[in-house]
Amino acid sequence: MIINLAQRAHNRNWELDPAVRSLLDTDFYKLLMLQFIWRHFRETKVGFAFLNRTRAVRLAGEVDATELRRQLDYARTLRFRRSELIWLAGNTFYGQRGIFAPDFLAWLEEFSLPPYELGEADGQLTLRFSGRWTDVTLWEIYALSIVNELRTRHALARLSEFELDILYARAKARLWSKIERLREGGACAPVADFGTRRRHSFLWQEYVVTAMATELGACFTGTSNAFLAFKHDLEAIGTNAHELPMAMAALADTDAALKQAQYRLLDLWRETYGGNLLIMLPDTYGTTQFLRDAPEWAADWTGIRVDSKDPVMAGEEYIAWVEFRGRDPGTKRILFSDGLDVDEILRLRAHFGGRVLDAYGWGTLLTNDFRDCHPRNLPDLEPISLVCKLAEVEGRPAVKLSDNYLKATGPAEEVARYRAVFGTAGVANIPVRV
Amino acid sequence: MIINLAQRAHNRNWELDPAVRSLLDTDFYKLLMLQFIWRHFRETKVGFAFLNRTRAVRLAGEVDATELRRQLDYARTLRFRRSELIWLAGNTFYGQRGIFAPDFLAWLEEFSLPPYELGEADGQLTLRFSGRWTDVTLWEIYALSIVNELRTRHALARLSEFELDILYARAKARLWSKIERLREGGACAPVADFGTRRRHSFLWQEYVVTAMATELGACFTGTSNAFLAFKHDLEAIGTNAHELPMAMAALADTDAALKQAQYRLLDLWRETYGGNLLIMLPDTYGTTQFLRDAPEWAADWTGIRVDSKDPVMAGEEYIAWVEFRGRDPGTKRILFSDGLDVDEILRLRAHFGGRVLDAYGWGTLLTNDFRDCHPRNLPDLEPISLVCKLAEVEGRPAVKLSDNYLKATGPAEEVARYRAVFGTAGVANIPVRV
Repeated sequence: MIINLAQRAHNRNWELDPAVRSLLDTDFYKLLMLQFIWRHFRETKVGFAFLNRTRAVRLAGEVDATELRRQLDYARTLRFRRSELIWLAGNTFYGQRGIFAPDFLAWLEEFSLPPYELGEADGQLTLRFSGRWTDVTLWEIYALSIVNELRTRHALARLSEFELDILYARAKARLWSKIERLREGGACAPVADFGTRRRHSFLWQEYVVTAMATELGACFTGTSNAFLAFKHDLEAIGTNAHELPMAMAALADTDAALKQAQYRLLDLWRETYGGNLLIMLPDTYGTTQFLRDAPEWAADWTGIRVDSKDPVMAGEEYIAWVEFRGRDPGTKRILFSDGLDVDEILRLRAHFGGRVLDAYGWGTLLTNDFRDCHPRNLPDLEPISLVCKLAEVEGRPAVKLSDNYLKATGPAEEVARYRAVFGTAGVANIPVRV
Repeated sequence: MIINLAQRAHNRNWELDPAVRSLLDTDFYKLLMLQFIWRHFRETKVGFAFLNRTRAVRLAGEVDATELRRQLDYARTLRFRRSELIWLAGNTFYGQRGIFAPDFLAWLEEFSLPPYELGEADGQLTLRFSGRWTDVTLWEIYALSIVNELRTRHALARLSEFELDILYARAKARLWSKIERLREGGACAPVADFGTRRRHSFLWQEYVVTAMATELGACFTGTSNAFLAFKHDLEAIGTNAHELPMAMAALADTDAALKQAQYRLLDLWRETYGGNLLIMLPDTYGTTQFLRDAPEWAADWTGIRVDSKDPVMAGEEYIAWVEFRGRDPGTKRILFSDGLDVDEILRLRAHFGGRVLDAYGWGTLLTNDFRDCHPRNLPDLEPISLVCKLAEVEGRPAVKLSDNYLKATGPAEEVARYRAVFGTAGVANIPVRV
């Protein structure tokens, strides 16, 4: 066999093995939200804060700060490539071409990530991003996937070559059994990859996504990862996230304006994107109050994403609301996206399939399920709950209540003020899943 | 990434992907037996016949005769390489250097495989090798591993790239669970690879053997495959097989000489190799009669290989015999080699460990255990029972009785004559395992 000398030397000596290879390697909805922010909040200043919710894992001992700095610095050198911008301009998203405007793409061409603040405290990493919202917002996903992948590499560095091979053999066998179960009985639950931020690594996510695309056919509806969608001709999936209502709430000057902020966002979103991306995320300040007090036109939206409430309860609540508002639930989309794995997907499919247009955004347990795969049974590769959340907007704290008391974020007094405005109807106290 | 253009072109266009890459790629005991035959039976003419004992599998439909011919023809072009001959001359086998004599090695340098006769009948392949025993005997293992690997490739050709990846992921996960079970509780059963003839493929055997060597340490005692022992600095394991007593029995002119042939072989073997390779294979014509009527000096041999009898019965029978002859069983080796898998190894280890020097020659279910690994649950990769046996010697049929009626080979009338001479004490009727 002729050795590829160049490849071998490169493999052993590379200066950096990037965890993030492209600015497109982010959740597609971040790009939609970025255009929205650039259009309506171009000068707004915000801060994002990184947090490890799995406090038992002392992250600073598993992720080397110097290596993290090199990866973050490398991400700052990235620019959108010409082919990527052409794809954003020319591709069809949610059935619509030209969703990204030429002036926004021209701005994106000049885009690069701003500086970050990295430190350590109590065995945890502290990582903050501050500045114009348009500059800062994309950091969220890159930071999360970089930290996750460095944690993975730290664990892998302790394994022998055979142990590494077995680790991936087990994870692939696990993935295949999930694919087989999804195919069984022809349930064809429409699943999409939502696992970029919590992925084991970029290459593993790419393996998982291409395996699903090849083996599930039309039942695999796409990926939230814009780079993988670009590279493998898949549908890019996702519309918006909590940061939008959180920012608009923080900017509200009165309690009345605060209560209305969640609907003002919907209005502004519809104005920006028209009829193709109308998926509501009603749980930011509690789903029950959101639906109860929503304007009449909200019932015309395509559907909702369920994220922090018991999914059966949330789905039933939405169906009842749709019917009460005189619309047909059979035309409405419910996208489940909280802590899914194959059992849960099949359970929800059995419950909701046929009654609504159900869909499943599968995250951590799709792209980072190495539970019980470690060849020496160490916990190094168990997924942990990392987030990078909007923390402040123009100097005011950002607050999320969610449908789960334990998922509320923000300073205690602000959370209390928000609860007084929004109430706590339908909010539960359930363990936070990955 | 820079593509290795040469490798890529070679991968896609190679003339032949050999199943057997070296004349050393055979069971080490074939080389010991070859030197023995060359020393004592240089002009003896024999015939070997290939047989698929798994009749339900129509082998001619799974192994293309043209491709088989190309592989067999390729094997005929092989010569022992200089480095391989130097290894045979200079390496230590069973604690002894210089086990292969210079005149034999000089002969081996000129060795090449003789012609073969290939045909088809009733959906099965017919394959015969006839000529001088010294020329023909090595064909056995090459023929078996070639046919097995071509059957594997036929099955693999029907799988997609992902399915192939999953197949091997599952097989690796299976192998690892076996390794883990062998390590549990520190049992350290001394296992060796005996799986060349029934292997899934050469590369898989190499993977399995190097994984075992790396992960089991001293509890992995070596491999029967001389090429893998050479390539990976492992112990080459094995002494002799049924073809020797079968040939000497066939050459016997009287019933008395027939009965004594099994002991004449022992005498001649000891004369040839001295004290280092004295493992008896007592089951050729029934273990019970062999031990009962053995000459006194047979009790001085190092041990036995158990192949066709219930292993607990065979081991106990041998231990009782050793004690009856006034020797210490704790100094004796029992090598189990029939249809082993990890459960059976651990069971026999629990039964015999500490009482004798137990050892385990692990074959088919080490190098070809793809049961339930097929991603579409097809049976293509279930191992089948292929053999290539000595069929005749100087025009006389070769006969084996074994400890199992179902494993007897030879024409019915000859089997009957042998049974009259040897008796059937202790012979059982148990299903033939892989």
